[in-house]
Amino acid sequence: MESWKTAISYSDEDQIWIRGQAMTSLMANASFTEVVFLLHHGRAPSQDERRLLDAILIGVSDHGPGSPSAAASRPVASASRQAPEAAVAAGVLAIGDMHAGAGAACMEMIEAGLGMAHRESIGIAEAAHRVVVDAIQKKKRLPGLGHRIHKEDPRTPLLFDIARSSKLAGEGIEFITAVESIARELIKPLPINIDGALAAVLHDLGFPPLFGKLVFIIGRVAGLTAQVMEEYTRERPMRIRIPVDYDGIQPNGNGTNGQH
Amino acid sequence: MESWKTAISYSDEDQIWIRGQAMTSLMANASFTEVVFLLHHGRAPSQDERRLLDAILIGVSDHGPGSPSAAASRPVASASRQAPEAAVAAGVLAIGDMHAGAGAACMEMIEAGLGMAHRESIGIAEAAHRVVVDAIQKKKRLPGLGHRIHKEDPRTPLLFDIARSSKLAGEGIEFITAVESIARELIKPLPINIDGALAAVLHDLGFPPLFGKLVFIIGRVAGLTAQVMEEYTRERPMRIRIPVDYDGIQPNGNGTNGQH
Amino acid sequence: MESWKTAISYSDEDQIWIRGQAMTSLMANASFTEVVFLLHHGRAPSQDERRLLDAILIGVSDHGPGSPSAAASRPVASASRQAPEAAVAAGVLAIGDMHAGAGAACMEMIEAGLGMAHRESIGIAEAAHRVVVDAIQKKKRLPGLGHRIHKEDPRTPLLFDIARSSKLAGEGIEFITAVESIARELIKPLPINIDGALAAVLHDLGFPPLFGKLVFIIGRVAGLTAQVMEEYTRERPMRIRIPVDYDGIQPNGNGTNGQH
Amino acid sequence: MESWKTAISYSDEDQIWIRGQAMTSLMANASFTEVVFLLHHGRAPSQDERRLLDAILIGVSDHGPGSPSAAASRPVASASRQAPEAAVAAGVLAIGDMHAGAGAACMEMIEAGLGMAHRESIGIAEAAHRVVVDAIQKKKRLPGLGHRIHKEDPRTPLLFDIARSSKLAGEGIEFITAVESIARELIKPLPINIDGALAAVLHDLGFPPLFGKLVFIIGRVAGLTAQVMEEYTRERPMRIRIPVDYDGIQPNGNGTNGQH
Repeated sequence: MESWKTAISYSDEDQIWIRGQAMTSLMANASFTEVVFLLHHGRAPSQDERRLLDAILIGVSDHGPGSPSAAASRPVASASRQAPEAAVAAGVLAIGDMHAGAGAACMEMIEAGLGMAHRESIGIAEAAHRVVVDAIQKKKRLPGLGHRIHKEDPRTPLLFDIARSSKLAGEGIEFITAVESIARELIKPLPINIDGALAAVLHDLGFPPLFGKLVFIIGRVAGLTAQVMEEYTRERPMRIRIPVDYDGIQPNGNGTNGQH
Repeated sequence: MESWKTAISYSDEDQIWIRGQAMTSLMANASFTEVVFLLHHGRAPSQDERRLLDAILIGVSDHGPGSPSAAASRPVASASRQAPEAAVAAGVLAIGDMHAGAGAACMEMIEAGLGMAHRESIGIAEAAHRVVVDAIQKKKRLPGLGHRIHKEDPRTPLLFDIARSSKLAGEGIEFITAVESIARELIKPLPINIDGALAAVLHDLGFPPLFGKLVFIIGRVAGLTAQVMEEYTRERPMRIRIPVDYDGIQPNGNGTNGQH
Repeated sequence: MESWKTAISYSDEDQIWIRGQAMTSLMANASFTEVVFLLHHGRAPSQDERRLLDAILIGVSDHGPGSPSAAASRPVASASRQAPEAAVAAGVLAIGDMHAGAGAACMEMIEAGLGMAHRESIGIAEAAHRVVVDAIQKKKRLPGLGHRIHKEDPRTPLLFDIARSSKLAGEGIEFITAVESIARELIKPLPINIDGALAAVLHDLGFPPLFGKLVFIIGRVAGLTAQVMEEYTRERPMRIRIPVDYDGIQPNGNGTNGQH
Repeated sequence: MESWKTAISYSDEDQIWIRGQAMTSLMANASFTEVVFLLHHGRAPSQDERRLLDAILIGVSDHGPGSPSAAASRPVASASRQAPEAAVAAGVLAIGDMHAGAGAACMEMIEAGLGMAHRESIGIAEAAHRVVVDAIQKKKRLPGLGHRIHKEDPRTPLLFDIARSSKLAGEGIEFITAVESIARELIKPLPINIDGALAAVLHDLGFPPLFGKLVFIIGRVAGLTAQVMEEYTRERPMRIRIPVDYDGIQPNGNGTNGQH
């Protein structure tokens, strides 16, 4: 078998090395968030970069037992008392294209929009305008914008403030802000939500679009493990009851109305 | 349907609340590791407690693409380019009883041993002695002790040093150290490995045994997302080839030797 | 890398071979259930054996969207429209020790009980008696017996009838029937449920205990894929709403009663 | 909470009902494959339809331990001895867009091509021609066609023969055969592979494109459970060793060549 190749980590007899740094040195001196940055970016973050990544990981860490990921973890935890990893994994699987997929999609939109701006030597506002018009014409949603209730997500201005005050706000934040402003004009108020905010910030930190989803997984797993622990400690096994209405084919000659 | 109950988090129109603390306040002021502590322990950590949890999360974060969890993530990432969450989840599933299960098992051993010491008013060393003798009689392994190569895991003394220098070393570290010393006498040198070290430290921080596995999942997910990202960016889809020897029933009248 | 070994299947340029039989020949002549038997047992079944396995796979195939496995699949299907495999996998993960784990546990009880009978040259009824008494003393449940509502599971007599009429009923059915009868005397009516019934039948067909869980997974996956398909086609994404009551720490100075 | 709705199944005190049919009646009279059809199609199959679905489920059931799905299951089975469902689920997760995704994609191509033929009142050959030309212009692959080694997949003619001899071959087979013939002319020989064959047959049986992936999952799970059982019974835990080359940043001042 051909060897698998990696530039992330390896271990020898005495040590594990992460991106060329000794594990024990990281354990003694770094925070976990710095190692998350190191693992995915290949270098350690500055303190301002670390602070932004901390804020993002915290911002996506939990949303209650009814969020789609926790709602998938809980039934598994209810039915399986020996394999907590199975319950956590089920929750991770719910982090699909609908739930938190918008972060990666928004990073792709930002990359494409800024790529167009640079290629065609147009301003970022003009690129954002074209992106919004294109979405309107194709009847596509703008990923990272909009909420069920049309209010600002309080996490967005906070992230942008940290980025700006530490001079880490770049073209990503400029672009998404332009998109929001043009969308407000041409469509309706569509405030930047947490997916759009983290997408812009991660772009400005130099991460690829895929990380927009991975960062959500890393942060949310901490919420899911807490949800699983609570299910194990507070609830009896098999306690979950989902009310179901059957409205399919009735048994032959059976007049039941299918309410169960 | 009966409502699900939770004491972890909820959201209202303006805010998400984690253990009674506003999400935006946590994002502005806390590190992700502090929120991991808060989510699972119900209160914020001291800086020393936070530092220990950081060291543990870092210590389990990655071990290369050949570790069982990454070895499960990589084939999924190789076969599925649209669902990175599936590849991460497959890796989480490998964090079973054999790979990293020792952390939780060791915390249970510590709890049981210390419980016996307190109940029967015997010393911790005596309780440790009984636990080792019992394991010898039942031919059971001592979870959290021993390595394939009989050398010290460099992460163990580091964790214990941090715990001791910050006055957070308690009965957990005392007990596991006693177990190691008695096992060395009665069996052979079985140095405390990372699972045993984090088990003792987490016990002294007041976490339940289950957290011994959950903390491994939280930390390792950061390594798995990096492994998945590398598979996506460095490798072509479907590149993994496992060499296989077939040694089962041969086709009727077919003389093939089954080497494939 | 050392090659992986297998006695199940391999492929050459022209053909895939399953337990030494050509895939195209199986496709032309066998039923899927026969191949399930072949894959796990290493030989093709007789028609009576095939019929029993069909009845078992059907008997566990679906139980509605509220069963724990479907209740885990549905939220993932609701949140992820691009990866139906993730939704199915989440459902498989709920087939843990509490939900359907009893099949494998019951097969182990049968194996242990019959092993004792043969080793100690006692009758099967006597072995069953000891097993029940032991469970009473250790306050352990008898796996495969009992229901929430104390009525017979209609699937049990049906399976046993097929087994008996085809002369495939063996010591497994004899043992579990003895256990039921003794439990009725010493404890209370604990009718053999589907897990106990399939355990006895699979034992008599020569399968190992592990297959008691695997057969449930194979059969139930067909129900889960149907549940996922229905979620995709009948429901809009993100439609699932779980009602949640928060009863944890309240925000400082915030008098909300935590009803959300 | 709003009740979940289903037209698939429900249970009452005495019985489980699948699409209006009593579970015990299905267990007594049907084959598992018939119930797979019933669950997903809403009606029982004819014997010819059942025979085709059997052939498809068998045809995708296993491909050896080195196939991507088994290659994901095996490391999980190696690391987790208590949760076989986790190992099976990891294998299911590898059934992504690259491995077996072509079935659903090919069914979509068939639906789109035939839809165009009907809408624009052109012949099926003409529609197939446009689809191939469009793929050439867009440099897209034709899903369901082509193999690594340019030979016929023996499963394809077998499936088509069964379909034709039972008069179940319809526009799906006609369309994909036309696509193959035009592709041979305009591109190169791209024989219809198993994904393309099952896509055409399932289309002609009236299944929606999504079932092209689900049927692969249902069939392959039987192979995965066999692979997991073999890992448990033949191999010691944690036996899998993946050879890895590290080619990333070297430790400061450390001259190791990174071969591990």
